[in-house]
Amino acid sequence: MREKERHRDREEETAMGGAPEKTVELDAPLSAFGFQFEELSPNLVSGRFTVTPICCQPFKVLHGGLSALVAEALASIGAHIASGFHRVAGVQLSINHHRPAALGDVVAAEARPVSVGKTIQVWEVRLYKVKAEEEGKEKKSEGPLLASSRVTLLTNLPVTDDIRGAAQTLRKHAKL
Amino acid sequence: MREKERHRDREEETAMGGAPEKTVELDAPLSAFGFQFEELSPNLVSGRFTVTPICCQPFKVLHGGLSALVAEALASIGAHIASGFHRVAGVQLSINHHRPAALGDVVAAEARPVSVGKTIQVWEVRLYKVKAEEEGKEKKSEGPLLASSRVTLLTNLPVTDDIRGAAQTLRKHAKL
Amino acid sequence: MREKERHRDREEETAMGGAPEKTVELDAPLSAFGFQFEELSPNLVSGRFTVTPICCQPFKVLHGGLSALVAEALASIGAHIASGFHRVAGVQLSINHHRPAALGDVVAAEARPVSVGKTIQVWEVRLYKVKAEEEGKEKKSEGPLLASSRVTLLTNLPVTDDIRGAAQTLRKHAKL
Amino acid sequence: MREKERHRDREEETAMGGAPEKTVELDAPLSAFGFQFEELSPNLVSGRFTVTPICCQPFKVLHGGLSALVAEALASIGAHIASGFHRVAGVQLSINHHRPAALGDVVAAEARPVSVGKTIQVWEVRLYKVKAEEEGKEKKSEGPLLASSRVTLLTNLPVTDDIRGAAQTLRKHAKL
Repeated sequence: MREKERHRDREEETAMGGAPEKTVELDAPLSAFGFQFEELSPNLVSGRFTVTPICCQPFKVLHGGLSALVAEALASIGAHIASGFHRVAGVQLSINHHRPAALGDVVAAEARPVSVGKTIQVWEVRLYKVKAEEEGKEKKSEGPLLASSRVTLLTNLPVTDDIRGAAQTLRKHAKL
Repeated sequence: MREKERHRDREEETAMGGAPEKTVELDAPLSAFGFQFEELSPNLVSGRFTVTPICCQPFKVLHGGLSALVAEALASIGAHIASGFHRVAGVQLSINHHRPAALGDVVAAEARPVSVGKTIQVWEVRLYKVKAEEEGKEKKSEGPLLASSRVTLLTNLPVTDDIRGAAQTLRKHAKL
Repeated sequence: MREKERHRDREEETAMGGAPEKTVELDAPLSAFGFQFEELSPNLVSGRFTVTPICCQPFKVLHGGLSALVAEALASIGAHIASGFHRVAGVQLSINHHRPAALGDVVAAEARPVSVGKTIQVWEVRLYKVKAEEEGKEKKSEGPLLASSRVTLLTNLPVTDDIRGAAQTLRKHAKL
Repeated sequence: MREKERHRDREEETAMGGAPEKTVELDAPLSAFGFQFEELSPNLVSGRFTVTPICCQPFKVLHGGLSALVAEALASIGAHIASGFHRVAGVQLSINHHRPAALGDVVAAEARPVSVGKTIQVWEVRLYKVKAEEEGKEKKSEGPLLASSRVTLLTNLPVTDDIRGAAQTLRKHAKL
């Protein structure tokens, strides 16, 4: 029951074109596409979004650049958490697009650390389709892999006063 | 004089949060960030945008994923034109982020073909800051390099009836 | 007992600077570094080598380019097998170097398919240290991850008469 | 005249299977393939090699992994010089293979810095065919592009006593 409501809420938020407040705070560009964060921890950053027209390239499938944006966003947040909330900077992103996603598909994204050093972190981010019958469920099985990527980040950067607020926001939402 | 007006128009469009019609038609996700196309040809696809809050990651600099989105978008359009308006699909994107761009900076992007084969095309996309005094000028000198990327695309895909409209739109805007 | 002999044989081969015959046939550049193939199948291509002086960069650790060579080699062989012994061509390789390996370390490499399409295949290749006590064992547990990579290959290429021999060699060694 | 002799010397070295002493000192794996360095400076590291059987994959064309090895090697040396002979470590390599090179082809490689920061450097490495009539000439025009790559390196690493010799060797050969 509660699950159903949660799902309906999500639908409504997307339908209104309004992104959830949490996404706006955590990652402004992602909020433009209705992306919703789920887990925020040093071992997993995840979320999902529905492929709406604003997410598509002219051939009406998910824009590959959007997959890259999701990858960079989730890896950056993960590296920030895993570094103990230091400032991080993406250095390199490599992504492979494996399969297209169509209008209306629900896409899940999961970022996990591959290697967490003091200076460099590498995160893997996978995007896959969520099977229709499981879209609203808390536990979902993975559908076809859409894209996989590696994000390399520099993680020993100082947090200066003017950006301290950003770290506070993430601390608030992250599970440690 | 006309240059000044053109510049003012552009500012107004961005200020209104409204993306130019051409960008909406050519690339929906880019339109969410006020990106404006300039050149559309088989040898160069270019454009520019101003770093507004929606373009930033939480540390208030240009989101690296947005650079990746721009790269994938421009390379895809370029490969589509260079293939004679066949359907193309991005296969791989690799991007290096070299320097940050701050709120208010104007960023120019240029995509050029590295290799144009029958099956595979590779495009290089460079993003750099436009120097303040040259923002409104037609000809601008390159400021610091922000990011550079390579996009690998599969280009021998058939254009089916349902996507013929997309190719028509690009034909309309492209210089051949 | 037989295991021990097998291990000793391997040591001798490497000590003599001579690469095993199988590697010479399957991949000439790898044979220069004493690489030995283990599994050859459409789901896994694996092998191992000892870090000798010829494998090192001037700072006396495993040369990152050698990891890349191993990745490209194993992925190419895997894609060739998975495609039904068609000709394949590497299109793109992205590799992250996570940790150094020192002179004398034994390095294992494993290539597995990420996505196997008709035109494009993507393989992941991981290199990791083999723990000292397990070097000669058939089953080994993974030590620290040294490098991870993605190799993108074009796989629908025709096998012409002059290269039919290469496919025959692989068929001979591969388990299907 | 002297040019001709220099060229003959080079041919003999390769014919003997012996790599020039300079390459052995600078990069052991490259020496296995007859690679010869030409320029060593903070703005350009270059060299060339002939595609011999040891350089080929089973389909008798230049092994893509060898292009990657060359790229990593040249970029690492360049970054080492550009950093003032500090220790450097390759973090990421991305390479696109554009065209095949056949047995007997002469391949030139050029590495140039894209961005030289205190912590991170990015180098671009291009491999192209040398046109037959210009193989022995000091100045050569570029033939078809075979591969292009980006190498990301961490450059602020300390040089410990045991590796000081490596830096001395490079200093000896480099033009500053």
